[in-house]
Amino acid sequence: MAPFRRLAELTRQECLELLGSVSYGRVVFTSHALPAIRPVNHLLLGEKIIIRTTVGAAVASAVDGSGTVVAYEADLIDAEQRLGWSVVVIGRANRVLSAAQIARYREVLIPWTDADTDEVITIAADVVTGYRMISATAGEPGTSFPEVPAI
Amino acid sequence: MAPFRRLAELTRQECLELLGSVSYGRVVFTSHALPAIRPVNHLLLGEKIIIRTTVGAAVASAVDGSGTVVAYEADLIDAEQRLGWSVVVIGRANRVLSAAQIARYREVLIPWTDADTDEVITIAADVVTGYRMISATAGEPGTSFPEVPAI
Repeated sequence: MAPFRRLAELTRQECLELLGSVSYGRVVFTSHALPAIRPVNHLLLGEKIIIRTTVGAAVASAVDGSGTVVAYEADLIDAEQRLGWSVVVIGRANRVLSAAQIARYREVLIPWTDADTDEVITIAADVVTGYRMISATAGEPGTSFPEVPAI
Repeated sequence: MAPFRRLAELTRQECLELLGSVSYGRVVFTSHALPAIRPVNHLLLGEKIIIRTTVGAAVASAVDGSGTVVAYEADLIDAEQRLGWSVVVIGRANRVLSAAQIARYREVLIPWTDADTDEVITIAADVVTGYRMISATAGEPGTSFPEVPAI
């Protein structure tokens, strides 16, 4: 069994770089007053996460166009070694309405599934937190997971 | 680039088996009225997900002992091949209060990190949904992601 790990907090810049290095994550929103989560592939453009709601209407209907706040998580974790990282973005989600912008995003972000629904949603990286699991014996004493920040 | 995939819905039994086959997932809850998500390692005992809140106080404080509803997601996705599965549980989370039960769970569920906080939380598998990404060319036409069910 792998040894205990320590959580080392990542900077905003490190988080965004890691987020851009993977092709999918999980969008977290509220649906029917309950917490909901859906895996989806993404593209990071500047400090905006772009997703296409080919995963169904649930995400799109949760985003009413007025900047509903959602969370977006991506991670790369080696369960065997207990090493890896996790990044969480909390930010305003907006449905893209401009036909030109929709066309542009559709060109660069190809959905993985053949589902019909196809809205483009942007998530602003308003609050970005993340950590990396590192050796517990190196460096400072272990810290607990950073608290969820308010925005 | 891998071809388009179709989402095939999994049965409750398949979902629970897949959930039990992996060692970690992501707990989704509300913190300060915002969606929050934290990776955490788990154990599936019967139809209950057991987690230890070594990931910080945020999850524990969201669970007030009265069965707050949370979501729990686990997946195993091959981004290259665009194959894999995702399972989402929605259920009542409860802090374990019995010292004997806490001791029992602590023996079988070892946290990955050395953080101090250590509450044991159970999540009931009230609603279980999941899908598998399969070849889009086989079988029926593609379906969009199943809607989020109400409980």
